[in-house]
Amino acid sequence: MANSKWEYVKHFEQPDHLLPNTWVVVRIDGRGFTKFANKYSFEKPNDRRALDLMNEAAKTVMTEMPELIIAYGISDEYSFVFHKTCKLFERRESKLVTTIVSTFTAYYIYLWDKYFPDKPLSPPLPSFDGRAACYPSVSNLRDYMSWRQADCHINNLYNTTFWALIQQGGMDNQQAEKALAGSVSSDKNELLFSRFGINYNNEPEIYKKGSVIFRDYELVDPGSHNVAEEADNIAEPVEQSKSQADKEKKRRTKARVVIEHLDVIKDEFWDKRPWILSNKPGKVPKET
Amino acid sequence: MANSKWEYVKHFEQPDHLLPNTWVVVRIDGRGFTKFANKYSFEKPNDRRALDLMNEAAKTVMTEMPELIIAYGISDEYSFVFHKTCKLFERRESKLVTTIVSTFTAYYIYLWDKYFPDKPLSPPLPSFDGRAACYPSVSNLRDYMSWRQADCHINNLYNTTFWALIQQGGMDNQQAEKALAGSVSSDKNELLFSRFGINYNNEPEIYKKGSVIFRDYELVDPGSHNVAEEADNIAEPVEQSKSQADKEKKRRTKARVVIEHLDVIKDEFWDKRPWILSNKPGKVPKET
Amino acid sequence: MANSKWEYVKHFEQPDHLLPNTWVVVRIDGRGFTKFANKYSFEKPNDRRALDLMNEAAKTVMTEMPELIIAYGISDEYSFVFHKTCKLFERRESKLVTTIVSTFTAYYIYLWDKYFPDKPLSPPLPSFDGRAACYPSVSNLRDYMSWRQADCHINNLYNTTFWALIQQGGMDNQQAEKALAGSVSSDKNELLFSRFGINYNNEPEIYKKGSVIFRDYELVDPGSHNVAEEADNIAEPVEQSKSQADKEKKRRTKARVVIEHLDVIKDEFWDKRPWILSNKPGKVPKET
Amino acid sequence: MANSKWEYVKHFEQPDHLLPNTWVVVRIDGRGFTKFANKYSFEKPNDRRALDLMNEAAKTVMTEMPELIIAYGISDEYSFVFHKTCKLFERRESKLVTTIVSTFTAYYIYLWDKYFPDKPLSPPLPSFDGRAACYPSVSNLRDYMSWRQADCHINNLYNTTFWALIQQGGMDNQQAEKALAGSVSSDKNELLFSRFGINYNNEPEIYKKGSVIFRDYELVDPGSHNVAEEADNIAEPVEQSKSQADKEKKRRTKARVVIEHLDVIKDEFWDKRPWILSNKPGKVPKET
Repeated sequence: MANSKWEYVKHFEQPDHLLPNTWVVVRIDGRGFTKFANKYSFEKPNDRRALDLMNEAAKTVMTEMPELIIAYGISDEYSFVFHKTCKLFERRESKLVTTIVSTFTAYYIYLWDKYFPDKPLSPPLPSFDGRAACYPSVSNLRDYMSWRQADCHINNLYNTTFWALIQQGGMDNQQAEKALAGSVSSDKNELLFSRFGINYNNEPEIYKKGSVIFRDYELVDPGSHNVAEEADNIAEPVEQSKSQADKEKKRRTKARVVIEHLDVIKDEFWDKRPWILSNKPGKVPKET
Repeated sequence: MANSKWEYVKHFEQPDHLLPNTWVVVRIDGRGFTKFANKYSFEKPNDRRALDLMNEAAKTVMTEMPELIIAYGISDEYSFVFHKTCKLFERRESKLVTTIVSTFTAYYIYLWDKYFPDKPLSPPLPSFDGRAACYPSVSNLRDYMSWRQADCHINNLYNTTFWALIQQGGMDNQQAEKALAGSVSSDKNELLFSRFGINYNNEPEIYKKGSVIFRDYELVDPGSHNVAEEADNIAEPVEQSKSQADKEKKRRTKARVVIEHLDVIKDEFWDKRPWILSNKPGKVPKET
Repeated sequence: MANSKWEYVKHFEQPDHLLPNTWVVVRIDGRGFTKFANKYSFEKPNDRRALDLMNEAAKTVMTEMPELIIAYGISDEYSFVFHKTCKLFERRESKLVTTIVSTFTAYYIYLWDKYFPDKPLSPPLPSFDGRAACYPSVSNLRDYMSWRQADCHINNLYNTTFWALIQQGGMDNQQAEKALAGSVSSDKNELLFSRFGINYNNEPEIYKKGSVIFRDYELVDPGSHNVAEEADNIAEPVEQSKSQADKEKKRRTKARVVIEHLDVIKDEFWDKRPWILSNKPGKVPKET
Repeated sequence: MANSKWEYVKHFEQPDHLLPNTWVVVRIDGRGFTKFANKYSFEKPNDRRALDLMNEAAKTVMTEMPELIIAYGISDEYSFVFHKTCKLFERRESKLVTTIVSTFTAYYIYLWDKYFPDKPLSPPLPSFDGRAACYPSVSNLRDYMSWRQADCHINNLYNTTFWALIQQGGMDNQQAEKALAGSVSSDKNELLFSRFGINYNNEPEIYKKGSVIFRDYELVDPGSHNVAEEADNIAEPVEQSKSQADKEKKRRTKARVVIEHLDVIKDEFWDKRPWILSNKPGKVPKET
């Protein structure tokens, strides 16, 4: 059968290679998760099991794709970052985005029973959409991470207060919304403390800071170098001997992938972990 | 906390609205399925349970996204088609592609145990990548479908012969490959028949034709109209009253989504089912 | 000298092939032409010499690029249309757009003295920007043309009335603007006639209809065929023998390129000139 | 007249905003300049008048678009660079590219008679195509500039030798091509010197180095700062008071735009002129 007469349709696919030498962020979001959270009676303002499930699914994505340098998650969203020198799938946008979305979804479904043994999944199933963006400089990338973590804080403070007013204050949704309209952070902190005896600072870090996933090596003395500058200076085209690349890959594979709840806005996080921006694996810490 | 100083990073996301008035095809593919098929000992040349699982996952995607008009699957790939007038997600490419990829993956994982009760899934899990392409005319779209179905035939004839040589002929992979090198279709048909008594025409339709999924209404007399021309003539911008749209949506939701193994290369398939290209729901057939 | 270590920068150029099988419209616009028109004291509401210069520049573009099927101009803008089967420059957007912009600009500057012998050009020189858009169907393309011609009409009726109020009615700009605020077409027609004795219908066609440029062949009886449908049905990939292509090219080159001021909104224009949408050269009319 | 029913066609124009915080290079090339050079009998290997015409046209583009920081030209091509913080035309690719192409073409045609008073232009006129690319880091941008200047050197050494063999050595084109096949730089230098007494190092700088155009301020002591690093560190979003922006614009406008033939591969050029990468106007040098 002559297939060739139809093969021309392949040329309607447009190339979608992302600009070289830029940091690629793929963000995924739960589709219709408000409704989904209600269906499975997620706890308010935060459901710890749901977050742990998100985190384990994200950790598996990080582990299966060693080209990822860091991931950051809040609520039903997760951002995954490829190093600017990453050449995976020739940087084709749709391959990068769909591989992450599909792998994440697969583990979310697969791991569901582990976190919700009492609530078996039923159709319609949860799913996630995703998109990519390119960031030219370390400064842009860190601003992206700061933006997401600031959002986490703003949302969590609001939600914590909102649900306190409802669960402990006996308000309904409209009353709570009205009570918070126009309030600033200090108002909410004050309200939580004076009315419900809640010190927001003592809330769990996972809710206040979100979750950050990365490969763990021995921490580095922050004074000794300038991480951002070194990363911006990585010259294109980066060339590496095959044996050097293999060696690094091996060290990367051996590194533990960890889930932490740290401040990624300040310099400290990045300065102590230069391997994240340099993409050079650090020293594997001794087992304890 | 001032989130606004970081919010500028949102503007690094590039818009990706697909060209209006074109047929959008999203094709997904299993990632590393050769290895995956070995891990779960899929039968050769075709594993019926694996195909049935693909088909049920795809059918659920069709059911959950009524904007899809048809889907076509072979082996570990599936193509989903949005009507050219579709406005879902403002035609944003990444939303359309990732929603399909994620929904498909979710059901593939969820339904696995139904088809492979004896082979529980274990990491690394199966996943799928995906991409979109736009086709301006009915003729281009049908050529796309013909291309995939011709590929199905070519591959299946090859694989059927290849595995007969191995499973019944006692050859190893290299010997079978060599035996088939340079052969044309008629050679393979002849070889199958003379050596193994297999009449290729009697092979199951699902293997020879692949699977086509669509909403089922009463068939139409093909002589009475010109489907392709009418579809090409649908003028932009299509405007519909709210009540008309709701009515159509209702009929679409009530229609049975069916999985068939039909020839989609010839006109007959399309002429008898004008609703696929017109996107006007047909008459719901009486239950039997 | 080792050039190769820097050559990698070439890969930062992104491919920009326009979707196949779509009509490509390149529209160019004069940059800052309000100021430019003042500098050279263009007549209001229309400067015939300026329009004739635009038209001759556009005609030369059409003549030098036989892949163009039609062009339409009003005021300081011109739209050029490539047939949907056009493969020029592999349909690379930047090549198509910049070639038209540059060629048009070159002739505009070169021909200036012919139309404005009394007003030599001086820096800053006139220039044009441009952009491309793809239209999948004949219906979309014709709607594009109708949109521009309707704009021509709306603007010209407004401008004719506006300048009559100023030049013959003794108003200043603000007064004229105010007098026309909220008026509909019939109001302006009435005002022109009752106040200044101007019958808008008798205004020159070039001002009311704009200018349309195309290759001229023998007109065709409109009843005998369906031009739009035939054009939509042109199947991809279009294949033509070398000799057939050469023959058509020759006929196209021999055809006169004409500038007319016709209605391109109604069917008649297109039906009588099937070669525009079919891209098959018609019969060259006998010289007269 | 109801224009609104056709206005939908505007939505077929795709947005084309270039990635923020990247250096934008627009390169233009003469179309069919081999033929064009023959028509006007350009001198070989270099025609000084043709280069001077290119340079004056490019200088005018730089002058009219103060957002450009540097331009570099060889033969019939010119590269124009926008600073990474440039927001002109909202960074729309087609606006940026066509404005440069059109302005350059206009001056090329307009200035022709000044450089070739003895050879009046006649149709077909010269024209230029153009394209844009984005470079994320200073290092990428400088590599781009180095790539073009290395090309200039390679081509000029080849052409100088090639035309010496023909003009002074009496060879024809094929013989000269054959004589140079497989030769490296040192071979050509040796051949020029031993056979024709030409010391390539003494050739005019404009031919060996190409032409670089920039705004001229007082040179800076290169030891005192790190230009590239400072430029990479410019944080997005750059915000400037209106009065500061106006002040800088004024100084930029007052600066002389100069055409030089300098090495742009080594650091010195950039270190002495920090304003090029920082986009902060320097001190205007005293008139002499």
